[in-house]
Amino acid sequence: MDSNGDLPSILGVHMHINGRSSAPEKVKGRKPRWSVKPSDMANRTYNPIRAIVDSMKMEPNPDKTTITLSIGDPTLSGNLPTDPEIIQALKDALDSGKYNGYAPSIGYLSSREEVASYFRCPEAPLEAKDVILTSGCSQAVELCLAVLANPGQNILAPRPGFSPYRTLAESMGIKIKLYNLLPEKSWEIDLKQLESLIDEKTACLIVNNPSNPCGSVFSKSHLQDILAVAARQCVPIVADEIYGDMVFSDTKFEPIATLSRSVPILCCGGLTKRWLVPGWRLGWILIHDRGDIFGNEIRNGLVKLSQRIMGPCTLVQGALKSILRRTPQEFYHNTLSFLKSSADLCYVALSAIPGLRPVRPSGAMYLMVEIEMEHFPEFENDVEFTERLFVEQSVHCLPAMCFEYPNFFRVVIAVPKVTILEACSRIQEFCEQHYHHAEGIQEECDK
Amino acid sequence: MDSNGDLPSILGVHMHINGRSSAPEKVKGRKPRWSVKPSDMANRTYNPIRAIVDSMKMEPNPDKTTITLSIGDPTLSGNLPTDPEIIQALKDALDSGKYNGYAPSIGYLSSREEVASYFRCPEAPLEAKDVILTSGCSQAVELCLAVLANPGQNILAPRPGFSPYRTLAESMGIKIKLYNLLPEKSWEIDLKQLESLIDEKTACLIVNNPSNPCGSVFSKSHLQDILAVAARQCVPIVADEIYGDMVFSDTKFEPIATLSRSVPILCCGGLTKRWLVPGWRLGWILIHDRGDIFGNEIRNGLVKLSQRIMGPCTLVQGALKSILRRTPQEFYHNTLSFLKSSADLCYVALSAIPGLRPVRPSGAMYLMVEIEMEHFPEFENDVEFTERLFVEQSVHCLPAMCFEYPNFFRVVIAVPKVTILEACSRIQEFCEQHYHHAEGIQEECDK
Repeated sequence: MDSNGDLPSILGVHMHINGRSSAPEKVKGRKPRWSVKPSDMANRTYNPIRAIVDSMKMEPNPDKTTITLSIGDPTLSGNLPTDPEIIQALKDALDSGKYNGYAPSIGYLSSREEVASYFRCPEAPLEAKDVILTSGCSQAVELCLAVLANPGQNILAPRPGFSPYRTLAESMGIKIKLYNLLPEKSWEIDLKQLESLIDEKTACLIVNNPSNPCGSVFSKSHLQDILAVAARQCVPIVADEIYGDMVFSDTKFEPIATLSRSVPILCCGGLTKRWLVPGWRLGWILIHDRGDIFGNEIRNGLVKLSQRIMGPCTLVQGALKSILRRTPQEFYHNTLSFLKSSADLCYVALSAIPGLRPVRPSGAMYLMVEIEMEHFPEFENDVEFTERLFVEQSVHCLPAMCFEYPNFFRVVIAVPKVTILEACSRIQEFCEQHYHHAEGIQEECDK
Repeated sequence: MDSNGDLPSILGVHMHINGRSSAPEKVKGRKPRWSVKPSDMANRTYNPIRAIVDSMKMEPNPDKTTITLSIGDPTLSGNLPTDPEIIQALKDALDSGKYNGYAPSIGYLSSREEVASYFRCPEAPLEAKDVILTSGCSQAVELCLAVLANPGQNILAPRPGFSPYRTLAESMGIKIKLYNLLPEKSWEIDLKQLESLIDEKTACLIVNNPSNPCGSVFSKSHLQDILAVAARQCVPIVADEIYGDMVFSDTKFEPIATLSRSVPILCCGGLTKRWLVPGWRLGWILIHDRGDIFGNEIRNGLVKLSQRIMGPCTLVQGALKSILRRTPQEFYHNTLSFLKSSADLCYVALSAIPGLRPVRPSGAMYLMVEIEMEHFPEFENDVEFTERLFVEQSVHCLPAMCFEYPNFFRVVIAVPKVTILEACSRIQEFCEQHYHHAEGIQEECDK
């Protein structure tokens, strides 16, 4: 390892221990003045959601209770509590007294073994050495980008897509190139356009499946096509599978790592969504490298980078074994059947609204809605549309500009059905009030 | 804010949504080949402790049980459990069901208010807006360095000192300059040498008090002298006070922020050491800026950087109020009186050993021991000394080379007294076996 190689640089540090140096009272004759500015990294750390939402200075309608469909937190409304077994697992970890000290920066070996055991399958074997525990899935993605890309290189990310990919990459001076998802093809990737973006500076391809914000789930054959691009262009994949297995009954989730023997894949996940505890900040990276392309170098790089912050909360690590083994199947089933019926309800209600075109989701907890902007000439774009929706109807949805995609908005469906129905009813009222017939089109509205 | 200014850059993103781009089957005619290398950042992330310890390939003496005095984890031996009130606070947070969702990336407002209220005093007022919660103190230090320093700038850190300062800084391309602590002055800073290191590229001065690895505690007047240097040179301070208040009965801990109205200070702390739960990863940054030198820019920079990872575990945040308000004084008192008696025991025992010169600590949980290397000609340095100590006596201490300081080793004193006594007895046996009279010196040994 490099530890031996680096040792002399420490031994060679120039030392003058006993104050023998001459110390000028003033340094180099300058008259110092206070000037403390944030670093380039801080200035570059840009969150599109915050930028857009913070700029929407607006108040809800005081006559209507606020309905928040903007935050991807399944716990927000209280209708999707985590399972009692999961709470008990945390209490057991607390009572054991064994999980108060430092864990290794990549997580306890026993906890990593549990994650490996939970996710391994014949097509994609995993051992503890292939697992790194992180402080939530966002740190997992951060470590993956940090280990694979240098400043000046680029990464490929979906549009529409989860904005922190940009935040993380640009904060590190890594460029982001956006490949298109096609709403008319259930948000599949435009593979030709994707491939056209790849150049010699492309460090990795982020594949987010199931998708935030689209709620879409890629088929096996589409994933194979994506892998074929990666294999042909020799681009490693960072798979964001935080919504893994969160697909509705008529859909199958295929972990991308199960479909390839050659493309090296760093797969990011965590307890956040499926176990409904986003605040607990327990994420992981699964290293799939059956072609030995990452080799020890990338693994060691991940380990070294993990030492900068020292891993996730040990209590949650200590509870992982019970969480992964003892959470009842009914819990997963109930969450998904709730989300599916919620998605169906929302899709049907929004489909009936003039000027809106929802795209039916197959998983995760989101639904994207196209705004036929030609019918809403008052509004310049989706930001103005959602802003006015909030001001008039107190319904808060994120404009898809937050996901770098114009003329759509995103609806979070992890809320009680009465809330969905009330929200859709208000959205309908709003649309009916603002709908204009496009020229040359005959339609009924404004009744 | 910058959000408005940045918005157009999103709106202006060049879009071609529907696959209208021409996609070449191969990119630029090159024949891609797999070549995935870790980033410069991963390669630069260098932990001196790991480098040195991993290179000490050694086995303990199979006839003696291993005694670990090398790891700064007060929970390791089980003799310093956290307080039952702290465990109960976590259980209450769990049972409330209110702390499973996302918190703001800088922490819940109510939790930040509790931290502000705990640490505020007339000389150093604090409000919730001055507090950022982090994933342990290491992330606190990381955010402080990340917001203040650009690649190519330098920061000042103590020698001997906590090695992650170097790890964090160098991973970000920030240079580290080491100022000397003087063992003969109870590890006070060599202020002239410190000042001589400051140049126009100096971004901040890290002051670690009480000190790891020294166990030293700065007096009020020494802290005032440090502040005078910072004020004269206009260098902001990053104060690592993770061992704050962990001082022995005859010593007083002065938070550096209470002593200055002008120098801007980012003070890092956390639950780790004082509350004996390092694994829970709850740290904080206290922003002291009464001269308005950081201004909103540095505050906003910290907020933006915090969004990269999304803050510490919400359960621990939810428990903070009870932890800070209800932990009994006896708990703090008992921890400190244990550490003091442990330090005294260790100091006295090591003082009697030929060839060793311990430096008496006043706080924290460490003690540094000078090795009179001229009396141990078999060993080239402290690394070899501690290596052989482990091989022969199964006592593991860190060579101070891990803290960039030669010819010392560090002892962790947060272990049961029988362990301290047994360890000191074995260290004595080891030293007596290897002690050589230096030429021209008359001493008694090898009895």
